[in-house]
Amino acid sequence: MSVSPFDHPFLSGLLGDEEIAEYFSAKADIRAMLAFEAALAKVEAQRGLISPAAAGRIAEVCTGFEPDLESLKAATASDGVVVPELVRQLRKAVGEDAGKHVHFGATSQDVIDTSLMMRLKAVAFVLSGRLFAVSSALTKLEERFGSNRLMGRTRMQAAIAIAVSDRLRAWRHPLDQYRDRLTQETFPLQFGGAAGTLEKFGPQAAEIRSSLAQALGLTDEPQWQSQRGRIAELAGLLSMISGSLGKIGQDVALLAQTGDEIELAGGGGSSAMPHKQNPVAAEVLVTLARFNAVQLSGIHQSLVHEQERSGAAWTLEWLLLPPMVVATAASLRHGLQLIGTVKRLGTIGK
Amino acid sequence: MSVSPFDHPFLSGLLGDEEIAEYFSAKADIRAMLAFEAALAKVEAQRGLISPAAAGRIAEVCTGFEPDLESLKAATASDGVVVPELVRQLRKAVGEDAGKHVHFGATSQDVIDTSLMMRLKAVAFVLSGRLFAVSSALTKLEERFGSNRLMGRTRMQAAIAIAVSDRLRAWRHPLDQYRDRLTQETFPLQFGGAAGTLEKFGPQAAEIRSSLAQALGLTDEPQWQSQRGRIAELAGLLSMISGSLGKIGQDVALLAQTGDEIELAGGGGSSAMPHKQNPVAAEVLVTLARFNAVQLSGIHQSLVHEQERSGAAWTLEWLLLPPMVVATAASLRHGLQLIGTVKRLGTIGK
Amino acid sequence: MSVSPFDHPFLSGLLGDEEIAEYFSAKADIRAMLAFEAALAKVEAQRGLISPAAAGRIAEVCTGFEPDLESLKAATASDGVVVPELVRQLRKAVGEDAGKHVHFGATSQDVIDTSLMMRLKAVAFVLSGRLFAVSSALTKLEERFGSNRLMGRTRMQAAIAIAVSDRLRAWRHPLDQYRDRLTQETFPLQFGGAAGTLEKFGPQAAEIRSSLAQALGLTDEPQWQSQRGRIAELAGLLSMISGSLGKIGQDVALLAQTGDEIELAGGGGSSAMPHKQNPVAAEVLVTLARFNAVQLSGIHQSLVHEQERSGAAWTLEWLLLPPMVVATAASLRHGLQLIGTVKRLGTIGK
Amino acid sequence: MSVSPFDHPFLSGLLGDEEIAEYFSAKADIRAMLAFEAALAKVEAQRGLISPAAAGRIAEVCTGFEPDLESLKAATASDGVVVPELVRQLRKAVGEDAGKHVHFGATSQDVIDTSLMMRLKAVAFVLSGRLFAVSSALTKLEERFGSNRLMGRTRMQAAIAIAVSDRLRAWRHPLDQYRDRLTQETFPLQFGGAAGTLEKFGPQAAEIRSSLAQALGLTDEPQWQSQRGRIAELAGLLSMISGSLGKIGQDVALLAQTGDEIELAGGGGSSAMPHKQNPVAAEVLVTLARFNAVQLSGIHQSLVHEQERSGAAWTLEWLLLPPMVVATAASLRHGLQLIGTVKRLGTIGK
Repeated sequence: MSVSPFDHPFLSGLLGDEEIAEYFSAKADIRAMLAFEAALAKVEAQRGLISPAAAGRIAEVCTGFEPDLESLKAATASDGVVVPELVRQLRKAVGEDAGKHVHFGATSQDVIDTSLMMRLKAVAFVLSGRLFAVSSALTKLEERFGSNRLMGRTRMQAAIAIAVSDRLRAWRHPLDQYRDRLTQETFPLQFGGAAGTLEKFGPQAAEIRSSLAQALGLTDEPQWQSQRGRIAELAGLLSMISGSLGKIGQDVALLAQTGDEIELAGGGGSSAMPHKQNPVAAEVLVTLARFNAVQLSGIHQSLVHEQERSGAAWTLEWLLLPPMVVATAASLRHGLQLIGTVKRLGTIGK
Repeated sequence: MSVSPFDHPFLSGLLGDEEIAEYFSAKADIRAMLAFEAALAKVEAQRGLISPAAAGRIAEVCTGFEPDLESLKAATASDGVVVPELVRQLRKAVGEDAGKHVHFGATSQDVIDTSLMMRLKAVAFVLSGRLFAVSSALTKLEERFGSNRLMGRTRMQAAIAIAVSDRLRAWRHPLDQYRDRLTQETFPLQFGGAAGTLEKFGPQAAEIRSSLAQALGLTDEPQWQSQRGRIAELAGLLSMISGSLGKIGQDVALLAQTGDEIELAGGGGSSAMPHKQNPVAAEVLVTLARFNAVQLSGIHQSLVHEQERSGAAWTLEWLLLPPMVVATAASLRHGLQLIGTVKRLGTIGK
Repeated sequence: MSVSPFDHPFLSGLLGDEEIAEYFSAKADIRAMLAFEAALAKVEAQRGLISPAAAGRIAEVCTGFEPDLESLKAATASDGVVVPELVRQLRKAVGEDAGKHVHFGATSQDVIDTSLMMRLKAVAFVLSGRLFAVSSALTKLEERFGSNRLMGRTRMQAAIAIAVSDRLRAWRHPLDQYRDRLTQETFPLQFGGAAGTLEKFGPQAAEIRSSLAQALGLTDEPQWQSQRGRIAELAGLLSMISGSLGKIGQDVALLAQTGDEIELAGGGGSSAMPHKQNPVAAEVLVTLARFNAVQLSGIHQSLVHEQERSGAAWTLEWLLLPPMVVATAASLRHGLQLIGTVKRLGTIGK
Repeated sequence: MSVSPFDHPFLSGLLGDEEIAEYFSAKADIRAMLAFEAALAKVEAQRGLISPAAAGRIAEVCTGFEPDLESLKAATASDGVVVPELVRQLRKAVGEDAGKHVHFGATSQDVIDTSLMMRLKAVAFVLSGRLFAVSSALTKLEERFGSNRLMGRTRMQAAIAIAVSDRLRAWRHPLDQYRDRLTQETFPLQFGGAAGTLEKFGPQAAEIRSSLAQALGLTDEPQWQSQRGRIAELAGLLSMISGSLGKIGQDVALLAQTGDEIELAGGGGSSAMPHKQNPVAAEVLVTLARFNAVQLSGIHQSLVHEQERSGAAWTLEWLLLPPMVVATAASLRHGLQLIGTVKRLGTIGK
């Protein structure tokens, strides 16, 4: 299906991002969820809660298990989450003896939030790299054109002349800050059991959680199933990235409209006016900035997450966060491409 | 790809809608765009602008034409719209003589907005039918349980007893109003040419537009390429539908939590507590209501549509409207299903 | 206090609207609430529910009653609504005998929603007049400059020449439609009693409601205390008005930046560059459009209005709707003023 | 005027916050703007740019200067900012000789953004104290009732029993984190001159900026007039605070509805049912959370801040940020009050 342009056969060329979309594929999610179940079994075996043989069998099956997607879909429709059916299928594949130990002490949200964190950690690394690339490209622009003159514009009117480097610093500085922020971001395990108390593990709970976090390459933290500030903060950072890139896009589109202070290679074609060159990447940066600004509102609505775990608020995150991540990635992709098309910025001389 | 749960192999079972998603497939869009090009050629032939033979050849090719999707994707990435490449491929398929008459006098936005309207018209019919089904199901509930007693609750506290029919009327009445509104909605052709003036058609412009609208089953209206109030209004109606269904969902979830005034069949399973029955459909109704309320903000941001045609504002609509339509459809689907699971509502006796 | 620029001693000059803000003063609200209580008593006396003397006394006191605002404030803080304390003060002023008949059969929401509708009805009339004024001013611009040439711009790039009248039609047409919509808007009484069932009135309920509506100049409709689609729709219309005016503002700002196709009188001064003329009204139109687009999202969140009456969802409307109305009014004010400053639009000749 | 409930004679009792609203009064803003002008003159005198006598005279007048508010209002309406007129009045008050040195090298945005930062710094200190108070109150609740039993609820359904302390930790933990974040927040001077280049100061620019920051108790940073990430981040933090408090409110409202696991003192009265006790503070927490979540979207829209300085995007911040700050303050106020009314939480025994 292709309801969202991020998933669309041809619109995704413009608005999607193949590399990052991969992390939100069903396959990537399932792989991460199975990694959780395998690591959980392993840690539980280390603690003597299940037998090493059972843990071995579970891990072995998890490695290559391909669940039946149609059944997952049907079950998600009625259960509201994929995990009960995934666990059912996994138990069956593992077999009678070890099967009953699959998912011991965990709840759906443990699996889904942890899978998300595993994938977001990888995504953050990619986005951080792209932020660096955009920043470097801006530095190179500055080396080439930094001393050129640019009409400084305030309130949509010519003000006084500035240097191209002045404008470029206003473009680059926020991106460098966001990169620092992204690098400092931590990605914690979610592990709480039925109602957040890990009630199946008694005094061993904290150690099991810690071992599980380590096994999955995540930070160890107390469960955060109803505390969604971390999601809100990450979403805010994504929207700041696309927002600052949107500012660059808007500036380029305005420069391109006036026309004498920028020269761009390429640009988009028009069906009615074949000779026309549209600053497509610049416009899309504005679009993606506004898109993320809108979505962020819903992520913050989800902070009102009732009781131990909310279906309504949590499911809303599923609808909003992956598109935000991909919009940010597409924004960085367009930003880099747009900067690459700048053949001249500003004018020479005072 | 499956960035959005609406397109996701298993999450779409919960959040998507197969019937309505079909209208937002690349295939449905391409079919509608080709129908536009075929009808345009036919109308232009009737007006003597192109030869009947050319129009016939164009219509013939449009019927079964399967464009190369990979090229469409690559071209959309650089042009910002699919139409220039689609027209290029179509011209090639039509052949040298007639090919040059393809798309005569039209612009990308004519094709894309018109394709959207053709599909939204069909979608509105389906949604209207679902609104009727939900309303009828509520009427049946009223027939069964209307005279039962329900604790009226204001500000989250028991107030005074009401009848079940009182609550049901508050649920049903808005849906009936929305259905009336949806039925009255018109779906106009968009036809303006390069900058909205149909400059290629001189004094014939209005008649060509009128014939084209008729051929495509759409309303004839002056071009509205930078006037997006119609989109905003339709989006508002969608959000009102899902909003009022969200209210029903919230009410059912609250009834289910208290527990003695409602009996539901089915409900979702839990991976940690197999016996637990979650009111999944009720929660999802709240989720979808909040989702649409969020997206609507972006649609209204798009009203600031600069000059004759905006890339930035228009592209934002593409990202927001199809998900809103599908969310509304899913909301109606869950609403109907939820009402179907009500085994008892209220308590007998005064 | 002046937390909001709409209420601010100097920022309201730019962003507020004195005429419309008046309708959202405490005084105007209290007057309308007292009118409700007086009309209710009168209607109840006509139906024999209270004595004509009591109704007369209540009406008499309501005419000039000035409640103690500090007590209203303190009570609103704890009750969440002003009505219980207002009624308490009013009863005391009315005196022992008639006092106990004040507010008979009504609930807080009846008073507050009805007061809102009375004021919105008056506001809609004013806004409708302003829409007409803006539309007329655009018509006059068209008479003066309609045949001038303007560079049509699509995707922020020069496309082909259009006439000034083409652009002006795209500006004016939505405003005329919104005016039609606003004129058709109905403003209903809200009257439901404690839980919406008018349980104190038995079989007379519908007739009392009808008489009360008539007395207050409002439409008679069944209670809509948890059905907020009407609020959502009106808010949507407000945001469409400011959105289409925002498009005009954006266009003017872009024209002013390029500079040769528009000549504006006046404009805003700068503290750093005294000679500079900023297109302040044009920018503010964009600001107000985006502001309303944002608020609308919250109004739609309020559609998830739980049970018979929600405190949380209803109170959110209070925070959002009055600012939206004033933003729309300010937008119309700036729109009219901006059009009045246009000394030239487009260039003469082909 | 009282368009916004935050400024309303009686609604502000519920939704406003007197202590914090004070920081957004015209008076507080003017005092901070005058402090900027005085400090600027002083620093410029230290650098030999203006005479010590002039700086002394400017500082002296700034101390007690009361500008004419009506003129400020009229000028703001046409200039879009208050500063040109404030400076004009100030120059006149300072007198002919020194007057011309007022505001030397600065621009409106320097004055307004710096005034905002001075006040936000003070506000952050107050909010931080309130976060501590709420957190401490939760700790005390835990001491009293932590070992009580509470039904853990997931997806709006009873799941398994938890301890009251489990729920309380989920309430308190995010608040402690936000307090850490708020404490780390820096509040920088904005100083850039006409187009951000401090072009009047040549090589002395950086040192003047640094001295000015120090004089005003702010952090020294390069101008950030078109880089609004800092505003977006602070707004995000505010919305996270009110969001997590909204979760507490929602939880309490749900507990109060069920009724046997919480006992609250007080609560709000009803005009129709005098005996009813409404959990007003709990509901308002939800309202304020959703309000801030909505506003945040607009703050992020403002990241698309065109060129050197944008009127449209900047003015949008003015409309959104002060209400967000006050909503957060009111949220903390209600949170503290609500926790204080808890007479019992959970039930004794396993």
